[in-house]
Amino acid sequence: MNAEILCIGTELLLGNVVNTNAAWLSQQLARLGINVFHHTVVGDNSQRLEEALQIAFDRADLVITTGGLGPTYDDLSKETVSNYFNRQLVLHQPSLEKIHEFFAKRPYSMVPNNEKQAYQPEGAVVFTNHSGTAPGAAIEQDGKVAIMLPGPPREMKLMFEREVLPYLQKFSDHVIVSRDLQLFGIGESLTEALLKDLMTSSVNPTLAPYAKEGEVNLRITASAATQAEGYAMMEPLMEKINKLVGQYIYGIDVPDLQTALVTYLLEHHITVSAAESCTGGLVSKSITDIPGCSDIYPGGVCSYSNEMKMKWLHVSPATLQIHGAVSEETALEMAQGIRQATGSDLGVSTTGVAGPDGGTAEKPVGLVYVAVAGENYQHVEKLNISYGELTTRSMIRQRATKHALYQLLQAAKRLKR
Amino acid sequence: MNAEILCIGTELLLGNVVNTNAAWLSQQLARLGINVFHHTVVGDNSQRLEEALQIAFDRADLVITTGGLGPTYDDLSKETVSNYFNRQLVLHQPSLEKIHEFFAKRPYSMVPNNEKQAYQPEGAVVFTNHSGTAPGAAIEQDGKVAIMLPGPPREMKLMFEREVLPYLQKFSDHVIVSRDLQLFGIGESLTEALLKDLMTSSVNPTLAPYAKEGEVNLRITASAATQAEGYAMMEPLMEKINKLVGQYIYGIDVPDLQTALVTYLLEHHITVSAAESCTGGLVSKSITDIPGCSDIYPGGVCSYSNEMKMKWLHVSPATLQIHGAVSEETALEMAQGIRQATGSDLGVSTTGVAGPDGGTAEKPVGLVYVAVAGENYQHVEKLNISYGELTTRSMIRQRATKHALYQLLQAAKRLKR
Repeated sequence: MNAEILCIGTELLLGNVVNTNAAWLSQQLARLGINVFHHTVVGDNSQRLEEALQIAFDRADLVITTGGLGPTYDDLSKETVSNYFNRQLVLHQPSLEKIHEFFAKRPYSMVPNNEKQAYQPEGAVVFTNHSGTAPGAAIEQDGKVAIMLPGPPREMKLMFEREVLPYLQKFSDHVIVSRDLQLFGIGESLTEALLKDLMTSSVNPTLAPYAKEGEVNLRITASAATQAEGYAMMEPLMEKINKLVGQYIYGIDVPDLQTALVTYLLEHHITVSAAESCTGGLVSKSITDIPGCSDIYPGGVCSYSNEMKMKWLHVSPATLQIHGAVSEETALEMAQGIRQATGSDLGVSTTGVAGPDGGTAEKPVGLVYVAVAGENYQHVEKLNISYGELTTRSMIRQRATKHALYQLLQAAKRLKR
Repeated sequence: MNAEILCIGTELLLGNVVNTNAAWLSQQLARLGINVFHHTVVGDNSQRLEEALQIAFDRADLVITTGGLGPTYDDLSKETVSNYFNRQLVLHQPSLEKIHEFFAKRPYSMVPNNEKQAYQPEGAVVFTNHSGTAPGAAIEQDGKVAIMLPGPPREMKLMFEREVLPYLQKFSDHVIVSRDLQLFGIGESLTEALLKDLMTSSVNPTLAPYAKEGEVNLRITASAATQAEGYAMMEPLMEKINKLVGQYIYGIDVPDLQTALVTYLLEHHITVSAAESCTGGLVSKSITDIPGCSDIYPGGVCSYSNEMKMKWLHVSPATLQIHGAVSEETALEMAQGIRQATGSDLGVSTTGVAGPDGGTAEKPVGLVYVAVAGENYQHVEKLNISYGELTTRSMIRQRATKHALYQLLQAAKRLKR
């Protein structure tokens, strides 16, 4: 079964909203083994929508629309899809009641147009909207299937997961499963160079690298009759990858470094604290993003000024004067200082020049020191993480933060050896 | 002139990458007064790409492609576009030299396939790639224009801004200008209710609201012969909006709350510090996102544990015992405490239940206190920022952070009155 995703909304064509719906739906359909060959975006315009729908059904069996289900005159999805299938719009009583219920709970009142949302194509399967007023619907006819979903991503996702996924199962005869290997400390080019032969020779499962800011993700994807079969098919490829780049893999099927770190710390009851200068709170924020972190993270400081570095972290005035705030020595004293202040097993620190201004010939933008300190252990890394004019302050701070999280993870593993 | 954006890449159809290029290009074209009526995404497949290009030129004068300019066999943009216009691919010597230069600076070496990227359609205008190896190109013929850009967003944007924008000026006879009014403390529904008549009656300029996490953005867009004329056309509408929701507007044409805050603090030489519990560093991170913040932000603490609240902020043990960490009293002592620790003009604090676990009947997930303290001023706000099952930890932390930034901005303005 081939599918097209047809997203409707002038705000998408003006570029005011990024179309995240198409990517999300594509991932969901891939898991069902339904091939997506086209995404189309069209505005809230009757004629262009009609034409786009015609083109979509000329080349796909399943068309999923998002948007155009709202209460106003320019919401045209149901009208256009109904016309395509020669169906009438009829009042769907359960939808009307749900809409009344929705407004009963809200501080603002229903407008007559909201009732328009309760009209559905005759004979359609109606999908409940669990977080908004616009129901969705599906029509099957002559081997073609149209599914209409609301535009707001949260409404769309909830409806898809709870209503559409069970509905679509009947069209799927195989599953696509994937695993994500997360790498840190190796660039995308080198990863590709090392894995090039594997990448080109692997057909099912396939192997594809994706670069994220400072990280590399290797995705293995298999198509099989069952999930178990799919995962089994991946094993030999996983082994080969491990031989080539295993030393850089910090996690499998974990979303990111901070989740891998906090999970490890929680499992091994290791506490950590952060003292941040150039990252300004981003390390602390990243750790506390993860639920349950309070068991392993008593806190941290953002010591932006030298005064606070001395006061909170007992960095010595001499160190700051002789070596400067951006130095190996200051980084180490900060890491030791935060560890002592909080009593954590490990302390981590960042100090550097995040830019865009403040760089000098000796200490340019992108120079960052990351240090980790434990009871009988300390380690500091000097990083140059600016790659020229395209590197932003935000990228430098993100990369420095990833290095800090990675160093904490490495130090935590060392504690357990 | 009408345009279609045709994005090429199987990774987009698998949902592995969100298509941000289409939205970004649409914004750029809107500024030139070029209407975008369709976005299409198609995979790295010769036949489907050819068909998509045909459909695009059937309905648009200008087609901008992204992706498919890489060195491998499945990069097909130039081949397909050349075929459409009946042109040959010929070696473009300056591009070949640039590619050689690019690799000369890199630690990895050039593969023969990279030379493929130096071949361009005969008679094309070639665009330099300022951060990668694939040049772009434009072909004009019979009233149709094709522009081919690389897929990686950074390469694409830089090429567009430096090379394509000057090239496209000749097709543009008017400009679209827009202004963004930023509102905080009012919901999207109420904003829409208050501005509904204005929104429906305004044609040029238009008025549209966009909700961002906890904020509302009002965008006014005018189409005119010149920028100055466009801005002048907006004035009467701006006045009407000001009368209706002026009290909620915290900034005009500023990207976000933290920029508005840091800009104001820098202008008025007011220093601030943050003491964070549930936001875990996000307030500090948000402030330090903005270059130049070191002049107004000496630092802050993430006092996640009660111990650190006492040690760093001198929150009294009695307060923690009687009222608990999540309380008005603790929030106020934290704000006062960080102010005293750093000597800042203003201290801000957050304490709450970010979830997903840890909520009780008395102190549910989403309960957050935000306090601000100055020399003769203190203010605390009790927030309930969970709206049910769809609210995530990340959303609660984001919203609490915005409230903290907004309260700081209000307190800073009060200092200046």
